[in-house]
Amino acid sequence: MAKNLLYSCLLAIICAIVTADEPSLQDFCVADFTSSTRVNGLPCLDAKFVQASHFSFSGLNLVSNVSKPLGFGFILATVARIPGLNTLGISMARADYAPGGVAPPHVHPQATEIITVIEGNLLVGFVTSNPDNKLISKVLQKGDVFVFPPGLVHFQKNVGSRNAVSIAAFSSQNIGTVLVANTVFGSTPPIADDVLAKAFQVDKAIIHHIQSKF
Amino acid sequence: MAKNLLYSCLLAIICAIVTADEPSLQDFCVADFTSSTRVNGLPCLDAKFVQASHFSFSGLNLVSNVSKPLGFGFILATVARIPGLNTLGISMARADYAPGGVAPPHVHPQATEIITVIEGNLLVGFVTSNPDNKLISKVLQKGDVFVFPPGLVHFQKNVGSRNAVSIAAFSSQNIGTVLVANTVFGSTPPIADDVLAKAFQVDKAIIHHIQSKF
Amino acid sequence: MAKNLLYSCLLAIICAIVTADEPSLQDFCVADFTSSTRVNGLPCLDAKFVQASHFSFSGLNLVSNVSKPLGFGFILATVARIPGLNTLGISMARADYAPGGVAPPHVHPQATEIITVIEGNLLVGFVTSNPDNKLISKVLQKGDVFVFPPGLVHFQKNVGSRNAVSIAAFSSQNIGTVLVANTVFGSTPPIADDVLAKAFQVDKAIIHHIQSKF
Amino acid sequence: MAKNLLYSCLLAIICAIVTADEPSLQDFCVADFTSSTRVNGLPCLDAKFVQASHFSFSGLNLVSNVSKPLGFGFILATVARIPGLNTLGISMARADYAPGGVAPPHVHPQATEIITVIEGNLLVGFVTSNPDNKLISKVLQKGDVFVFPPGLVHFQKNVGSRNAVSIAAFSSQNIGTVLVANTVFGSTPPIADDVLAKAFQVDKAIIHHIQSKF
Amino acid sequence: MAKNLLYSCLLAIICAIVTADEPSLQDFCVADFTSSTRVNGLPCLDAKFVQASHFSFSGLNLVSNVSKPLGFGFILATVARIPGLNTLGISMARADYAPGGVAPPHVHPQATEIITVIEGNLLVGFVTSNPDNKLISKVLQKGDVFVFPPGLVHFQKNVGSRNAVSIAAFSSQNIGTVLVANTVFGSTPPIADDVLAKAFQVDKAIIHHIQSKF
Amino acid sequence: MAKNLLYSCLLAIICAIVTADEPSLQDFCVADFTSSTRVNGLPCLDAKFVQASHFSFSGLNLVSNVSKPLGFGFILATVARIPGLNTLGISMARADYAPGGVAPPHVHPQATEIITVIEGNLLVGFVTSNPDNKLISKVLQKGDVFVFPPGLVHFQKNVGSRNAVSIAAFSSQNIGTVLVANTVFGSTPPIADDVLAKAFQVDKAIIHHIQSKF
Repeated sequence: MAKNLLYSCLLAIICAIVTADEPSLQDFCVADFTSSTRVNGLPCLDAKFVQASHFSFSGLNLVSNVSKPLGFGFILATVARIPGLNTLGISMARADYAPGGVAPPHVHPQATEIITVIEGNLLVGFVTSNPDNKLISKVLQKGDVFVFPPGLVHFQKNVGSRNAVSIAAFSSQNIGTVLVANTVFGSTPPIADDVLAKAFQVDKAIIHHIQSKF
Repeated sequence: MAKNLLYSCLLAIICAIVTADEPSLQDFCVADFTSSTRVNGLPCLDAKFVQASHFSFSGLNLVSNVSKPLGFGFILATVARIPGLNTLGISMARADYAPGGVAPPHVHPQATEIITVIEGNLLVGFVTSNPDNKLISKVLQKGDVFVFPPGLVHFQKNVGSRNAVSIAAFSSQNIGTVLVANTVFGSTPPIADDVLAKAFQVDKAIIHHIQSKF
Repeated sequence: MAKNLLYSCLLAIICAIVTADEPSLQDFCVADFTSSTRVNGLPCLDAKFVQASHFSFSGLNLVSNVSKPLGFGFILATVARIPGLNTLGISMARADYAPGGVAPPHVHPQATEIITVIEGNLLVGFVTSNPDNKLISKVLQKGDVFVFPPGLVHFQKNVGSRNAVSIAAFSSQNIGTVLVANTVFGSTPPIADDVLAKAFQVDKAIIHHIQSKF
Repeated sequence: MAKNLLYSCLLAIICAIVTADEPSLQDFCVADFTSSTRVNGLPCLDAKFVQASHFSFSGLNLVSNVSKPLGFGFILATVARIPGLNTLGISMARADYAPGGVAPPHVHPQATEIITVIEGNLLVGFVTSNPDNKLISKVLQKGDVFVFPPGLVHFQKNVGSRNAVSIAAFSSQNIGTVLVANTVFGSTPPIADDVLAKAFQVDKAIIHHIQSKF
Repeated sequence: MAKNLLYSCLLAIICAIVTADEPSLQDFCVADFTSSTRVNGLPCLDAKFVQASHFSFSGLNLVSNVSKPLGFGFILATVARIPGLNTLGISMARADYAPGGVAPPHVHPQATEIITVIEGNLLVGFVTSNPDNKLISKVLQKGDVFVFPPGLVHFQKNVGSRNAVSIAAFSSQNIGTVLVANTVFGSTPPIADDVLAKAFQVDKAIIHHIQSKF
Repeated sequence: MAKNLLYSCLLAIICAIVTADEPSLQDFCVADFTSSTRVNGLPCLDAKFVQASHFSFSGLNLVSNVSKPLGFGFILATVARIPGLNTLGISMARADYAPGGVAPPHVHPQATEIITVIEGNLLVGFVTSNPDNKLISKVLQKGDVFVFPPGLVHFQKNVGSRNAVSIAAFSSQNIGTVLVANTVFGSTPPIADDVLAKAFQVDKAIIHHIQSKF
């Protein structure tokens, strides 16, 4: 196995040297998940090996698991599944909601989200920053579109009597998601209880109670 | 009427002066289509007047007209319809295709496009830049996702026997679309016929024939 | 007063016409808080009127009020106070902490924060995004520096026996701050209690109890 | 040879370790074409090995081949020839035109182009996006400058009786060029003829005729 | 005159209202020098009034005045002369040099410069940042290209026996130029002489001598 | 030793393969100084190995050496010392000044600087670009804040009778500093004396005198 690895290593260098004389124009930078180098984003696959499958992914027609407690599930079509998205600053997702199901308050640190309702009725909302903390919310019908500005806390809830489905797009190929409850009450290790007691202005027993759920 | 206009003008200045002492933080910059100032993007509405409707739009559930000759129609949910998208670098659209319908070869000058098929079967493809001019294409089923890198010529075609529907998202709040055929053969005024005859390596009669269609 | 306003209006147009022939190079874009136009960022003052005071602000030597319940206060030196910061992507702040004082978990939607401790001892930490939710924290001494990546939940706590002071800088001229507790439990109007009950996995009585504090 | 390659590999790692203690400031990131890593742009050469030749290229005084059918030739001074351009967002080119010679309609996906005429007379033009498709064109004399906005279809034609020469600059170190005719009618494999027939609104025989030229 | 100004003001508002219903796609943002609003960059002209002349400028064929003391002259084709360059991040210039003529050490604060020699021989160079302060220089012949990285001190000198000409492009539509000598020894008001004496490590008499030249 | 290096190389490749199946979201890109790849910025450490110490640095409480001739010293908290700053576009520094001490005229090629005075009194100033060359300066007291726009020449001087201290932040994780005097008169090799004599409009003897100091 060591020999194979060495061989791969040498081959990579040889390829690099062979192609060095004719650097091609770059139409895209398909992610190369086998590269040993980590960069902001991902290294690129040699354009010679790029195929249509690198720009594609199947499965946004499938219903995600919407079991308890949240009654909410989703599937991401980000650069991890579509390597061709690398460096292109966009991605997609599908979300499913049982009746009453909730996408709990969360933040995408650096991405805008735009969603459209494919089936059902969703209550959606986001809260503006301090000191206004104004909730901007709306009930969406099938075919409605809504925008969540970057870095603001937002949520969705199925307010209809049947399952709901939404398609979302994000202004990043690799969104991160900060789930407020999990981050604050369920981190590893936990945030000190007196920090949380002061922040939420309740006694530590309540903080411990919430922490025990995560 | 002149008085009203003057009044509006004065009011705008008063508002500006009144708010000058406490510039608020900016969570978003909802487009103000009534501003007399044109900037790269759009000026912002006073945050005090921002409502949920500024972040919303209805109608992506409606079937667009897919009449001849292309058998293709679409509706855009860009900043022109969702003012809250201003400065946020993302937008959405729905496209409908009759059987055999074609979204003709086109370019979004500075935006990546990601699409997912909601109904039907689409042949999609894009062509890499000179000198390779490699066609990267794929037949998509319901639930499949595909990416068109920014600035490259791409197209879609309904290869199924029923109407098809796709939802797309773009990495710009205000995509421009360059339809190759209309741009090259249907501009106002037309591009000189000898330029086109040399470019397409055919005689001017054929150029005139194509130009007559636009 | 109407006459004065009209006069200002006319004067602005005259100035614009007079200067139109000789657009100067732009070394900076000092914010003009009296402009009636709102843009992403702020319009610029005529460079002829720019003075050193536009790039300056006094007061980071003053102790902020650190009264209960948080025992924490701060003063911002952002574009609202230093108009010369407009478009330059940086700002500063000073924070004061009583013993045990807490800067509660919060997010700066699109800015990195770097802080240094001027006096005292601070426990600082941030939590990585889902699904890891890893708390990365450290006790800082005088002269220590720490970084909070953009869009992640973070907090500070004075763990010493005397008042503490920190100086922070942000990669934005106009940071927004999302205080997790205030945003989630104290928005106007409130987020629906069943959304919060599901998110925090506790019953509505506890949600109502926390909401009553904001 | 394998030994040499291995040696290079080890040497690279040793260099990296030796320099790790004193990461130098980065004034530039000269492209390293021998690196086995592909990134968006190109990896950087160790600054210790950077020389003036990395920032230079000779040959914009030479006349390119302007043979038929286009009567047009060019030479690019992009990052492929000037490694010091890496990450700097600019490049240059010289174009030569026989009398009647044509730079056919093309798009630079993400770069603005600015050109100046060194010798001769050029008709230049670009077409705005859908639905206007407005041709904005001008005949340029020696010393005239013209701008092509990013992502729009544009062309040049020598309308004088002698050879013409232009110098262009681009807002990218590595421009891609989409030649409309070659992309649409000359891709490998070809775009389906019915897609093109619908797009150009002519019958397939004409499509096949044009395709046969590429 | 006041009436005319008022009329212009009202007209601008009317235009804005009339066009508000149909915000068009933005292919470019041609600078509107008559706008009373100052933004980072420049406001845009209504696209309806845009003409080819907005993208053009004549005069790069003309020899600039190369009189003493520097023997150097130049003409800029930036957004001030080509309004269509607004927001596009590129510009051009022509420079002329008498034999021995010098473009003195200077900095373009945020723009890369690429130049090509049209006539003559130029010594060009730039200096890397502290602590290396390495001079990277080269003598250029006709047709040679050279790059000056952004923010670094650079210079050009005609080392031939005849006049020299270069064409430059910049990665900004509106370059600023910091002439080192004029900035440091010729500012209004002057920099305190003891600051300069310490910086250049010479006595104040020499500082005063140099200051007297500017 | 060669074996160890080879082992490291293989291990890196194995790690890459093992992690390839589950690319995690990217909250940060902590610099990996041991990577053999050089990119614009720095490669990232595997997130699994990231610790709080990567986001921290100690020492801004320590007084720098402020010996002659400048009477000025500083310590940088940039990505070289805080690997967690990589890609985040911000950094900090502390500067100390003896009475009369001078931070000589310098440029940060692409970063804005914001400073606050912790102790003492500083005269600070920057000079606008050509042709205005206007000095904008101010004497700062303890707690005052001042901004230096990117790419402009600026300086600081202790005008009090005791040592002074400032904390600065920069809009870059890796600022470069161009010291005007050292760059122009102390480069290796030196800039030709006739270039400097023309630029500063003095005879070569004075140029040689100044050059001898560096």
